[in-house]
Amino acid sequence: MKHLLSMKHLSTDEIMMILERAEQFKKYGIRQTPSPYIISNLFFEPSTRTKTSFEMAELKLGLDVLPFEPGFSSALKGESLYDTVKTLEAIGLDALVIRHPEDGYYEPLLDNVNVSLINAGDGSGQHPTQSLLDLYTIKEEFGSFEGLKVLIAGDVAHSRVARSNADALKRLGAEVTFLCPPEWAGEFDCVNCWDEVIGTSDVVMLLRVQHERHDEQTSMTKESYHAQYGLTVERETMMKEKAIIMHPAPVNRDVEIADSLIECGRSRIFKQVENGVYVRAAILDMISKGRQ
Amino acid sequence: MKHLLSMKHLSTDEIMMILERAEQFKKYGIRQTPSPYIISNLFFEPSTRTKTSFEMAELKLGLDVLPFEPGFSSALKGESLYDTVKTLEAIGLDALVIRHPEDGYYEPLLDNVNVSLINAGDGSGQHPTQSLLDLYTIKEEFGSFEGLKVLIAGDVAHSRVARSNADALKRLGAEVTFLCPPEWAGEFDCVNCWDEVIGTSDVVMLLRVQHERHDEQTSMTKESYHAQYGLTVERETMMKEKAIIMHPAPVNRDVEIADSLIECGRSRIFKQVENGVYVRAAILDMISKGRQ
Amino acid sequence: MKHLLSMKHLSTDEIMMILERAEQFKKYGIRQTPSPYIISNLFFEPSTRTKTSFEMAELKLGLDVLPFEPGFSSALKGESLYDTVKTLEAIGLDALVIRHPEDGYYEPLLDNVNVSLINAGDGSGQHPTQSLLDLYTIKEEFGSFEGLKVLIAGDVAHSRVARSNADALKRLGAEVTFLCPPEWAGEFDCVNCWDEVIGTSDVVMLLRVQHERHDEQTSMTKESYHAQYGLTVERETMMKEKAIIMHPAPVNRDVEIADSLIECGRSRIFKQVENGVYVRAAILDMISKGRQ
Repeated sequence: MKHLLSMKHLSTDEIMMILERAEQFKKYGIRQTPSPYIISNLFFEPSTRTKTSFEMAELKLGLDVLPFEPGFSSALKGESLYDTVKTLEAIGLDALVIRHPEDGYYEPLLDNVNVSLINAGDGSGQHPTQSLLDLYTIKEEFGSFEGLKVLIAGDVAHSRVARSNADALKRLGAEVTFLCPPEWAGEFDCVNCWDEVIGTSDVVMLLRVQHERHDEQTSMTKESYHAQYGLTVERETMMKEKAIIMHPAPVNRDVEIADSLIECGRSRIFKQVENGVYVRAAILDMISKGRQ
Repeated sequence: MKHLLSMKHLSTDEIMMILERAEQFKKYGIRQTPSPYIISNLFFEPSTRTKTSFEMAELKLGLDVLPFEPGFSSALKGESLYDTVKTLEAIGLDALVIRHPEDGYYEPLLDNVNVSLINAGDGSGQHPTQSLLDLYTIKEEFGSFEGLKVLIAGDVAHSRVARSNADALKRLGAEVTFLCPPEWAGEFDCVNCWDEVIGTSDVVMLLRVQHERHDEQTSMTKESYHAQYGLTVERETMMKEKAIIMHPAPVNRDVEIADSLIECGRSRIFKQVENGVYVRAAILDMISKGRQ
Repeated sequence: MKHLLSMKHLSTDEIMMILERAEQFKKYGIRQTPSPYIISNLFFEPSTRTKTSFEMAELKLGLDVLPFEPGFSSALKGESLYDTVKTLEAIGLDALVIRHPEDGYYEPLLDNVNVSLINAGDGSGQHPTQSLLDLYTIKEEFGSFEGLKVLIAGDVAHSRVARSNADALKRLGAEVTFLCPPEWAGEFDCVNCWDEVIGTSDVVMLLRVQHERHDEQTSMTKESYHAQYGLTVERETMMKEKAIIMHPAPVNRDVEIADSLIECGRSRIFKQVENGVYVRAAILDMISKGRQ
């Protein structure tokens, strides 16, 4: 594997290989790579969990990490991402983990760049490592994807996660339904009401309300969003016995999900965070060793 | 030791144990811990010396450190400290060093958190590692605390250091007097004039005028503060022969203390900084090894 | 070598020694130093390539690096550079790499400071490691400096690079000509037109238009700057057969140089970046080992 750009670029075989490698790391521990491999994490948007998760995976693999703070870089002098990446390549970096606000920021880089690129989120496009850790968490729970009913609820149109997950889950045999306010549906086909879906879903995957991205657009208060589209305490009681709750976090408490449900028995929210380290270690391991 | 939260939580035995471990580190060097232990430094307020001091202690102990920049974290997306801490715990961190502007920020974390917490300053509350390095510096100088006269001069009400130190010093047998402008005394009993105390104090511990915290409140200029409440060149000449000057820094030169006194023979200001590394290494060593 | 402050402080022998050490590192790889040596990079101005280049050199030499983010340091509390440096020295740092907006910021530090200082750029003064990597790149290309004709084109008066390079190149036997708009010439003697110099120069060294430093001053548009003072596609065709193009970067594409020339056969722009790591490693190696 040379780059990890989007779920679209991964075959189902490749997805399963990543999930299996992650599983081995979780079972037997992450082995340190003895070979020198130098990486940097370029986060042009704020993030705690994704950045720290990558850094933990890099630490456990024994990779060398060069710090990079975009808020204090030449990007402030108007340097393009292409020039930044070519510069870091010339300095000797082997791989770059990049989160960037622009959709498909990596496209103009691919022709001329030798360094490996790992997409940690592009605009409202893809966020493949988040998708893979979601898939891992589902597989860990249910063993396989065949016939699973997955409900993705929330800000579908603005969510990287929704886009990345929907396609991959379908390819792997799951059935995906979206639930969201009509004005957030975008090009997706969505249901509008929990009653139709809450009792039959195996996985309820909540999305973050992206206050940063659409301050203006909706007249809904937090309370009315929660009442209509959030996972309330009452709705949780209607879930199937073994159904689980997922959320990519950070959570807006009492908006997408009732505060008291975040650490409830069905919630896999912090387990997703934990699994993220193993999935990212699997990807970095495969890329740093140039393995298919 | 599981956490280090405040001086109140430490018995005098525990304080003495920390000071002794620090003394051994200073004498014989800081030994690297071979066991893997992963830590992060969460500074939600600016700091050079405290953060760098912790990082030096961590480096010398051979701990693994994950970078964390709160200015670029999900805190910007409104994530609570509790969620940030639970996330970092799920990612696999063993301990967190935290400076946070809120008094007692750690209280709501204690029930649900497994990671060790080391308080690097909470609001105008406690700053236990600063207190411990102050105590270390006094003990290094005088051998013991019994009967020592310590004067704490300055912004008593807004100072973490004043609160943390006063109680601990008294418990260890020292006599503590405060000197400050009446409007900054808060709940403390303060003298108002140097003449009463300058000739009898063994330790003159100056506090920083916190311009950040009270821009408005006083009509005093820097010059008049220095003249009335600062350690002037003239006052220094009235100090006891072996008396020392301390300041947690950063110093406002010619406000709390005359510029020319900062590196004078009595000043322990940069020695305090040096000692901070040993004290923090002692604490991290005890916490990372789960020792009492 | 104790400090690296400016090109003025280096004899031609010392310059040649640095270039030779860098050449060995490039040929045989950078050897890890086994001795403990702790360094920090203090960048008070934004930079990608210089900071990352130093960090790569430090990593390859096996030096210990403490992170420092000035945007989040006590500098915000008004602490002077002197106090910051004395503090970091007390904490136990051996060397500091510093970029600072003030010309000659290091002068007031020299008398009282034991830590080694490596100047990574001071205001519009010197930037000696950039000069040295430029010299290295020229020497790598032509073998020696004797009789080489070097053209430095652009914002001569505001450029650290121009100042540092001009003097060193002349001392090493090269002939230096400046080309710039009359209002940017400062104290330098400049030609005003490419025709006089483009056909005879061995090295065309372009400088960055410093939009940050002089927003107001010129009525020239980017297009008219490029047409009059930039290296256009047409001018490149008039260069000598073996002549090369250099630029310290970040480049303002289609201002100082036509976009299509940046990665052309004559361009050494990304090679300069690559060479920077070897040159900085050579300097750090000499300083950390206390060698002349």
